[in-house]
Amino acid sequence: MSQSVDSDVSGGSAVRTFIQTHRAAFLDDLAEWLRIPSVSAQPDHADDVRRSADWLAARLKETGFPTVEVWETPGAPAVFAEWPSGDPQAPTVLVYGHHDVQPAAREDGWHTEPFEPVVRGNRLYARGAADDKGQVFFHTLGVRAHLAATGRSTPAVNLKLLIEGEEESGSPHFRALIEECGERIAADAVIVSDTGMWAEDTPTVCTGMRGLADCEIELRGPDQDIHSGSFGGAVPNPATAAARLVAALHDEHARVAVPGFYEGVSELTDRERELFAELPFDEESWLRTAKSHATHGEAGHTTLERIWARPTAEVNGIGGGYQGPGGKTIVPSSAFLKLSFRLVAGQDPDRVEEAVRTWVADQLPNGISHTITFGAATRPCLTPLDHPALQSVVRAMGKAFEQPILFTREGGSGPAADLQDVLDAPVLFLGISVPSDGWHAPNEKVEIDLLLKGVETTAYLWGDLAEHWRDAH
Amino acid sequence: MSQSVDSDVSGGSAVRTFIQTHRAAFLDDLAEWLRIPSVSAQPDHADDVRRSADWLAARLKETGFPTVEVWETPGAPAVFAEWPSGDPQAPTVLVYGHHDVQPAAREDGWHTEPFEPVVRGNRLYARGAADDKGQVFFHTLGVRAHLAATGRSTPAVNLKLLIEGEEESGSPHFRALIEECGERIAADAVIVSDTGMWAEDTPTVCTGMRGLADCEIELRGPDQDIHSGSFGGAVPNPATAAARLVAALHDEHARVAVPGFYEGVSELTDRERELFAELPFDEESWLRTAKSHATHGEAGHTTLERIWARPTAEVNGIGGGYQGPGGKTIVPSSAFLKLSFRLVAGQDPDRVEEAVRTWVADQLPNGISHTITFGAATRPCLTPLDHPALQSVVRAMGKAFEQPILFTREGGSGPAADLQDVLDAPVLFLGISVPSDGWHAPNEKVEIDLLLKGVETTAYLWGDLAEHWRDAH
Repeated sequence: MSQSVDSDVSGGSAVRTFIQTHRAAFLDDLAEWLRIPSVSAQPDHADDVRRSADWLAARLKETGFPTVEVWETPGAPAVFAEWPSGDPQAPTVLVYGHHDVQPAAREDGWHTEPFEPVVRGNRLYARGAADDKGQVFFHTLGVRAHLAATGRSTPAVNLKLLIEGEEESGSPHFRALIEECGERIAADAVIVSDTGMWAEDTPTVCTGMRGLADCEIELRGPDQDIHSGSFGGAVPNPATAAARLVAALHDEHARVAVPGFYEGVSELTDRERELFAELPFDEESWLRTAKSHATHGEAGHTTLERIWARPTAEVNGIGGGYQGPGGKTIVPSSAFLKLSFRLVAGQDPDRVEEAVRTWVADQLPNGISHTITFGAATRPCLTPLDHPALQSVVRAMGKAFEQPILFTREGGSGPAADLQDVLDAPVLFLGISVPSDGWHAPNEKVEIDLLLKGVETTAYLWGDLAEHWRDAH
Repeated sequence: MSQSVDSDVSGGSAVRTFIQTHRAAFLDDLAEWLRIPSVSAQPDHADDVRRSADWLAARLKETGFPTVEVWETPGAPAVFAEWPSGDPQAPTVLVYGHHDVQPAAREDGWHTEPFEPVVRGNRLYARGAADDKGQVFFHTLGVRAHLAATGRSTPAVNLKLLIEGEEESGSPHFRALIEECGERIAADAVIVSDTGMWAEDTPTVCTGMRGLADCEIELRGPDQDIHSGSFGGAVPNPATAAARLVAALHDEHARVAVPGFYEGVSELTDRERELFAELPFDEESWLRTAKSHATHGEAGHTTLERIWARPTAEVNGIGGGYQGPGGKTIVPSSAFLKLSFRLVAGQDPDRVEEAVRTWVADQLPNGISHTITFGAATRPCLTPLDHPALQSVVRAMGKAFEQPILFTREGGSGPAADLQDVLDAPVLFLGISVPSDGWHAPNEKVEIDLLLKGVETTAYLWGDLAEHWRDAH
């Protein structure tokens, strides 16, 4: 291991030298991990998921983490590692990622074997190269570069890693796992390395994810389907009632019309809007990605604001009455709606649920009864632009990329919110993947130079965090 | 055959005497017909449907019709019979009915064998007793009573019967049949004996049926289901578009909001509204029949007006997006609507179709494409209260029932409109069935005294029609 120490406190050139020296071995090691088809969704790969956990545990030991454990769950195992700073003032950081991957088969359209990594130019092709093994693995070389460049024998922060094995299966046991682990995973900040950047030439940091509340509404009218000739036009129709509910969900400005829905919503600051607007957004290309033929959404907001920073109500499914070919002249007996609500920081899923329940009950006409069932909600998470830990990430990334860092958010919802919620700690997203990496698609790849920028970012991050955390607290 | 002639021109007491004399034989004959399980919907009963046609043809011959023919169709055969008046001034009347029946099996809840007629008190139980064999068969004894009471050897009108064999299967070949028959079935008026009255103690004449136009609308948004976290709130959702179409179908007065939809609608006269209001309508009992929990419909109209005399738009089916258990966070790629429109006299199905097409195209947001497909329409039919043929039916029925005759309409749609349309003749509904007769249900029955009132009505009708037709023309 190189011990050269740079004069620069965060060790810029030393870090780069270290990374260049270990580049080949790092990529070889990653390739070895990528050969393990740790597909959590396929039961016949259960052993591979376990092998993947064991492989990572061994590699984290080798990296220098004094504590490395494979944690069992009722499903696939997670890997936990801990490397105390030794400094009683040091903040504690928990890195989240996952070692399981999406299914992949050559016949899905892969040009090479998905579990036989291939390097072509700057690209490493394999299932999991970007999502998420590559982005987990850059932390191993990153912490070594941090130590090498600073001459430390322990990281500047108390470094913890929690790498789950079921993310691609919906993290069914993750919430229970982190609730049980309690103090073991306590942290002052969470770094999630399972996202990406705007584009290869536009490095960005994601500052939050939307939350999610979803419900199913069953509407009942006549006790059975009845003849539309004999009764139509004189009794309430539950399919019409369902449709009218959906139509009433949004006002003429495409804002959600449920009273109280926007209560507490953390509005975008002017600065955030300016920064979003600096991203090179091309509507045509976005529409191609969305496979959609027009944009449509809340008045007064751009497309990026709508998908990242505004709460929404969406119909995911609707049904009722005759579903077969041709027509059938009935007033249907029942109809259903499956609705989901994306939530943003400041919204409380419980209050949204209450608001929706009240609204639905108020909307329905006489003669239509209903049942409404909510699923488990996911909270939104957001770290403000001026949060000191976010500032550290931006500085570390800016130093690695030698470019200004812009900001994104994630419109989807995920286990990051569980970490924010259970640990009561800010969540920071550090990812170097780009949209062309093909997550969940054939020919997944990672850009090697970006992967090494990830290594470099973490090599700078721990020192910066430790230094500025002290200043801020 | 009794030849007694009453002093009364229409032969009141002679008719009754004749009917009483032939009552037992009439019921025995009807029972013989009812034993033939002429279920048109079930291919293994095809021979029975043919047997039923042959049986009826033989019986009509026996009744005295000089011309009786079994007419082939690509499906089940119809029976045609003709008995000229001999009087060159006599109007021509075509009686419509059907000899096929709904499926029936003991295990559906019948207390007796459905095709083994049983008389209990005033009731004759069997599949087809009311719908429609009983109501076709009363014409045979009716014309004989007419001749007996008036001393005529031929009916006072040119009497034609067309009894189809596929009504319970949706009359798939009926329109083509009557278009091909041309002059053979030409008539000045059509008597449809395939409906009922308000109640046993409230004899009524139905004056019209609603028409029907129906369509299926397919709405397309994104080219595939897309992630509601990544794209939701920023692209148009076809399920939302479908729902908004449905919600926009009616205004706040529950009137159909499609521009031009009400064009030409024949409004109820004050007299018709008064007469409808005289019917002993009980909302609680109507709701029980409708299996519905509230009434709802066009403002300013009663329930009976809504189902009989007002055009409607109804959602028969709606669907789109995720249909399985639980939730799925997508913006669906497509959605569909199955709509039907009941039409009333004065509305042109083609213009309604055009109005709906234009309206749908105007309503849809950018980014949602659609296809709209209309089925074959059924025209509405209506005979005004002051039509001389209707007045004849009312007088004949009033004489048979010795009660004032009130008026109903039929909310459904049927082949009667095809007859009105092809023959360009008024359609009159003469039926004696009551709601408790159990059409299409187990334990179908007919009230024997009402069946004989049907016989008696037709015995008076032909003379009255011939007499007043001359006056009116």
